Amino acid sequence: MLGSTHGTLTTHSRPARVVACGEQPPHTVHGRSAPHGRGGGQGADGVVDRDVSGRPLHAPVPDLDRFFRPGSVAVIGASDSEGRPNTGITRQLIAWAERVGARLHPVNPGRTQVFGRPCHATVADLPETVDLAVLLVGDPLPVIEQLAEAKVKFAVAFASGFAETGEHGAAAQARLAEAVERSGLRLLGPNTNLNAFEKFRADLDGPAIALITQSGHQGRPVFALQELGIRLSHWAPTGNEADLETADFLSYFATRPEVGAIAAYVEGLKDGRSFLLAADRAARNKVPVVAVKVGRTETGARMAASHTGKLTGADGVVDAAMRQFGVIRVNGLDELQDTAALLARAKKPTAEGIAVYSISGGTGAHFSDLATAAGLRLPTLGDAKQAELHQWIPDYLSVANPIDNGGHPVGDWRGRKIIDAILADPSIGVLICPITGPFPPMSDKLAQDLVDAAERTDKLVCVVWGSPVGTEDAYRGTLLGSSRVATFRTFGNCITAVRAYLDHHRFVADYRSPFDDAPRVLSPSARKAQALMRPGQQLSEHAAKQLLRAYGIRVPREQLVTSAAAAVRAASLVGYPVVVKASGPQLAHKTELGLVKVGLTSASQVRDAYRELTDIARYEDVPLDGVLVCQMIERGVEMVVGITHDSLFGPTVTVGLGGVLVEVLQDVAVGVPPFGEDQARAMLGELRGRALLDGVRGAPPADIDALVEVVLRVQRMALEMGEELAELDINPLVVLPRGQGAVALDALAVCHGERIHDPAHRTA
Amino acid sequence: MLGSTHGTLTTHSRPARVVACGEQPPHTVHGRSAPHGRGGGQGADGVVDRDVSGRPLHAPVPDLDRFFRPGSVAVIGASDSEGRPNTGITRQLIAWAERVGARLHPVNPGRTQVFGRPCHATVADLPETVDLAVLLVGDPLPVIEQLAEAKVKFAVAFASGFAETGEHGAAAQARLAEAVERSGLRLLGPNTNLNAFEKFRADLDGPAIALITQSGHQGRPVFALQELGIRLSHWAPTGNEADLETADFLSYFATRPEVGAIAAYVEGLKDGRSFLLAADRAARNKVPVVAVKVGRTETGARMAASHTGKLTGADGVVDAAMRQFGVIRVNGLDELQDTAALLARAKKPTAEGIAVYSISGGTGAHFSDLATAAGLRLPTLGDAKQAELHQWIPDYLSVANPIDNGGHPVGDWRGRKIIDAILADPSIGVLICPITGPFPPMSDKLAQDLVDAAERTDKLVCVVWGSPVGTEDAYRGTLLGSSRVATFRTFGNCITAVRAYLDHHRFVADYRSPFDDAPRVLSPSARKAQALMRPGQQLSEHAAKQLLRAYGIRVPREQLVTSAAAAVRAASLVGYPVVVKASGPQLAHKTELGLVKVGLTSASQVRDAYRELTDIARYEDVPLDGVLVCQMIERGVEMVVGITHDSLFGPTVTVGLGGVLVEVLQDVAVGVPPFGEDQARAMLGELRGRALLDGVRGAPPADIDALVEVVLRVQRMALEMGEELAELDINPLVVLPRGQGAVALDALAVCHGERIHDPAHRTA
Repeated sequence: MLGSTHGTLTTHSRPARVVACGEQPPHTVHGRSAPHGRGGGQGADGVVDRDVSGRPLHAPVPDLDRFFRPGSVAVIGASDSEGRPNTGITRQLIAWAERVGARLHPVNPGRTQVFGRPCHATVADLPETVDLAVLLVGDPLPVIEQLAEAKVKFAVAFASGFAETGEHGAAAQARLAEAVERSGLRLLGPNTNLNAFEKFRADLDGPAIALITQSGHQGRPVFALQELGIRLSHWAPTGNEADLETADFLSYFATRPEVGAIAAYVEGLKDGRSFLLAADRAARNKVPVVAVKVGRTETGARMAASHTGKLTGADGVVDAAMRQFGVIRVNGLDELQDTAALLARAKKPTAEGIAVYSISGGTGAHFSDLATAAGLRLPTLGDAKQAELHQWIPDYLSVANPIDNGGHPVGDWRGRKIIDAILADPSIGVLICPITGPFPPMSDKLAQDLVDAAERTDKLVCVVWGSPVGTEDAYRGTLLGSSRVATFRTFGNCITAVRAYLDHHRFVADYRSPFDDAPRVLSPSARKAQALMRPGQQLSEHAAKQLLRAYGIRVPREQLVTSAAAAVRAASLVGYPVVVKASGPQLAHKTELGLVKVGLTSASQVRDAYRELTDIARYEDVPLDGVLVCQMIERGVEMVVGITHDSLFGPTVTVGLGGVLVEVLQDVAVGVPPFGEDQARAMLGELRGRALLDGVRGAPPADIDALVEVVLRVQRMALEMGEELAELDINPLVVLPRGQGAVALDALAVCHGERIHDPAHRTA
Repeated sequence: MLGSTHGTLTTHSRPARVVACGEQPPHTVHGRSAPHGRGGGQGADGVVDRDVSGRPLHAPVPDLDRFFRPGSVAVIGASDSEGRPNTGITRQLIAWAERVGARLHPVNPGRTQVFGRPCHATVADLPETVDLAVLLVGDPLPVIEQLAEAKVKFAVAFASGFAETGEHGAAAQARLAEAVERSGLRLLGPNTNLNAFEKFRADLDGPAIALITQSGHQGRPVFALQELGIRLSHWAPTGNEADLETADFLSYFATRPEVGAIAAYVEGLKDGRSFLLAADRAARNKVPVVAVKVGRTETGARMAASHTGKLTGADGVVDAAMRQFGVIRVNGLDELQDTAALLARAKKPTAEGIAVYSISGGTGAHFSDLATAAGLRLPTLGDAKQAELHQWIPDYLSVANPIDNGGHPVGDWRGRKIIDAILADPSIGVLICPITGPFPPMSDKLAQDLVDAAERTDKLVCVVWGSPVGTEDAYRGTLLGSSRVATFRTFGNCITAVRAYLDHHRFVADYRSPFDDAPRVLSPSARKAQALMRPGQQLSEHAAKQLLRAYGIRVPREQLVTSAAAAVRAASLVGYPVVVKASGPQLAHKTELGLVKVGLTSASQVRDAYRELTDIARYEDVPLDGVLVCQMIERGVEMVVGITHDSLFGPTVTVGLGGVLVEVLQDVAVGVPPFGEDQARAMLGELRGRALLDGVRGAPPADIDALVEVVLRVQRMALEMGEELAELDINPLVVLPRGQGAVALDALAVCHGERIHDPAHRTA
């Protein structure tokens, strides 16, 4: 599996460079290059729509209706002998088939009947073409071809021992994937389980959570939300994803009308681009996606990889990708439950203001403190509204927001009046009532009043039931009995979920898919840039700057010279003061070696500097292509902008603050292509040292527009050069005061080791 | 209350300056200056032991035995008329008195009997001297004197309408506090409630949680832990703290043998020093303190202040104070419950390694990821241990840690073997078993095995019961039925609590009280420094540097001159290259005004610079005391070190990285005196940019010892100068390479506006 994913990235990203500007890359190269690529990138007319990096801009939604609601099901390896594991599974599948109204056909060459149903030797013998085959056999590979011949649409393979066990298993999985690819059917698994065929409660209505997990056990608590009255519609336990992957279910669920939110537990992804396209579909359809993604640490990443044999990607890149496409990443399964449940059921907010209403000033203060720290906004209620509330709440209690009723008013007719008055305030979109201690005469009435009020409003009503006991009637009966009130057990989870709710609706309201604007054809810059590539080499500073220049990124006026006299001539052309630097391939740590001289103001200084640099280079045995005489740029904010490659998402663009900030604090933001101008600006907002760009200590604000433009041009370069440009690091990029642009003072560019597909480029 | 606390800080910190070096400050000045100061700072012999700032170094533990377990109780305002609030309270107090074996005496001038008990008109009429009087009267003030005459030891006042309602109420509270102070009794309240007299379960044993809250409602969920089998021993609802404060209960609980941990919900503190002394006592006694402290945000701080009328202090300072004294600060009440419960009951760890054991590779990966990210250490098990585990766990599953058993082995005899084998590993001190989905055939057996194993080991066994349902038998019966297994509902809370557990035991093992080494007498430096003070003024740079020099902090060689010729002479004495700077009181933004010239290498440059600076100063109308000619210091790490004053904790010391780091990122650590060398070093460890001190980009490691020494000298200055030195800011302090020291290049010092007590200093 690992191998084939890598292979796909390679074939996706390289061939783009061989097609001429304006041409579409030939379909044959990209076609069915890997099992999971099937259909990927083909529009309705079957034409593959790809960006300039060769990766698809569009992914069709797989039609999984007949997977989840088949008319007929075959169980290959069905059994009714007591004590055999397949017997329990067969029994469970029969029950499920009855629930969903599917005809079930046992298949087993050794039996004629299973649980009283006629059993056939092979699928070929079945009386009808089945939609779904469940494979209870140790090795699913030999069965795939039979299924294909019988025109089965979907199969599920439970067998384990594939990519999760190491190299040998990965090879077996690759063979299985190829067989599936040839067969035309779609496979869930291997190494999956019965979760898709669980008992979904039919008595719950309203928008549901659809669940995707790469570990059955880890999905269990979300599924158990049904027991608390929250509707679940689907569960896709994707296992090793030899064919169907997380992204397929994500995009399918995003089109289902009954799905209010998608909850995902992800250990690794099969392909970065397909995940982005699926998340993009969810964002376009305004369907919230909440995900736990393992891999915050190396330990976690290693464990996750060994569990289902998938790539985890660099965590910061995964984080950025999710943020760009509006996927809400949470850390714990409890947050996954609470956030998905809220997002599935709450209507679009009418306002972003939160009202906190409590029967204790302490609770209100504490909750408001945490909510405000998390970025939620508690607007101060207007004087008229406060006066209205003081009709029912004693004057000495604060009702400015948080609203403290002191306890007693909730016990009588005033309770409802207060809640209705708060909900009627146009600045309030969310009412949160934390009840940390149950006191039945008050809290039971309060819970009922909140449930009743929630029925009469479109605004979100949340309750935190803070008692650790959780067996109280007001909680189990009243609050969990309401599908309109969102009930939490902790302040933290309530705040996380409400923030996600507001963030989601803000995000989808403004969402514009970056795939719509992604470049499809090579720019003229790419031709020039390709001519500069030197496979397997680090370019000289001068060549790296030419690469930047090819993409319209400004570099200082500079000349490459090979004599002291030429250096002096260059200096007067460039204009004093100048910087003189050694330039050569494989040259790093120039400053440490003494190979940079700044602030030279005369011909004699330039001549001396030239001699000194070339002496040092000779002494240190550093090959030079010459000496650079450069314009000196002084006033500005030092940034770094670069390209790195991620195993999942391909080339990514990084931007950070330069100097000690990037060195010591790693204050860097990542952008996963494709992203637009807004996302590039948002990246700058993620930097902790961002204020430097706005001007500190009397410095003028920096030219942020120019910086954003550089980030976008570097993205274009990343997409067009693909893996051929193994690394780019502009350090520093000096961002001048507003209106004056940004200049790349130094750059490091490393070319990929070998040329594939296009040896002609070697001579460029 | 606010006013009187302020007043106390003032009298504490100022008079120290008037006593001669080596003398003890006169007791009369510090004596019973505020109600809460009672007994504070007096040793067993009644001699006040104070540090050089005039604040106590010792706080006696109040004897509250007879408060929590009185022999006899008077209820002032007792009632048995149906419908009156006091009737319900009286009934509850009678029940409580019966439980704790106290004789209860109703007091009410309007009745002869209450609930069949003889009722007396006043406390003077009671047949015995009572330990505790519960005041159910609207205004407790007139009763206090009667209680004192009757030699009542303790009183509780429920009445509200004091400092929490504003200025008028604060004045009433001050009068009440004075009356209590005069009376000799100790008062809980006003604005408190019945929480101290709740029903504590007597059937639970083992170490208990003692609870302190400033809001009754907010303590409710911790108290409810009893319903989950966790023992609670005390509840102190401190209310407005007119007399007894959080610190009193903290130090009392820290001496009680039945208390395993103290849980506190704190909105504001009455006095910083008394809190530190109480936390110090808990640390010395190795009793863990877990606290929620409201006031992360301004909103929260404002709400909290208005709720119980106390100071919240700057949140970063509170955070630092808690960290220095080992108080575990958590955000939510759920974390407070889970962390306090674990710390109360778990024995000292035998090792710091965590083993994560699960029935799902996904769960193990996810938990390990979060645990590792939180800084917990999962040691890889040795080959022999892994081989042992593989006797029972299939070979294809990883048992390196996390240990994945794949499910089946837990169902039979192997389950116990595995758990025992893990617990027998000497590198493992904590076994954590996350069970996210109940599957009774496995999870019930697993829960029982873990409970049994926990009985046989001193190591900590934790279970996360991840099901949101929480009514399962394995959870309610088996797990909560064990006092040896710590059961959590979320990964996050388990990780928070286990980290706190390991941190706490590491902290108390190494704890050395900074109060033992706090300076008691003025240093000779203080005399010199006091002579430099100019009340109400900002000192000139030259004077501020003399202040530093008085405390042995190195400054560059420099001379203050008032003529160009003198400047040239000074330069040759100081040694070229030199820096020339304007110096004058009230002078800020020297660089922006062009009043600093660096890197001057000749007499003519110095002469020109002198003229230019004085011209600018004349033009800008800036009064100068002269021009500084300073040695130029080039190579080092720029830091800032300073003194600020906190409303709660008095003078504090800050240290941060200089330049853009402090400007943009506020990368600053705070130390709350008294602190020792280890704490000063720990402050450096809190800096995000700390790596700069270790040397980056080939720079040599900085002289951290010298930096620590400067921080400690600044602390001494802060303690000795008190409020008289309103602000000190050394910026930059250049820390030279290791062994070469640290030099203060510039400093800003602001003296307090007016002199009190010691007008003689004006002429110094």
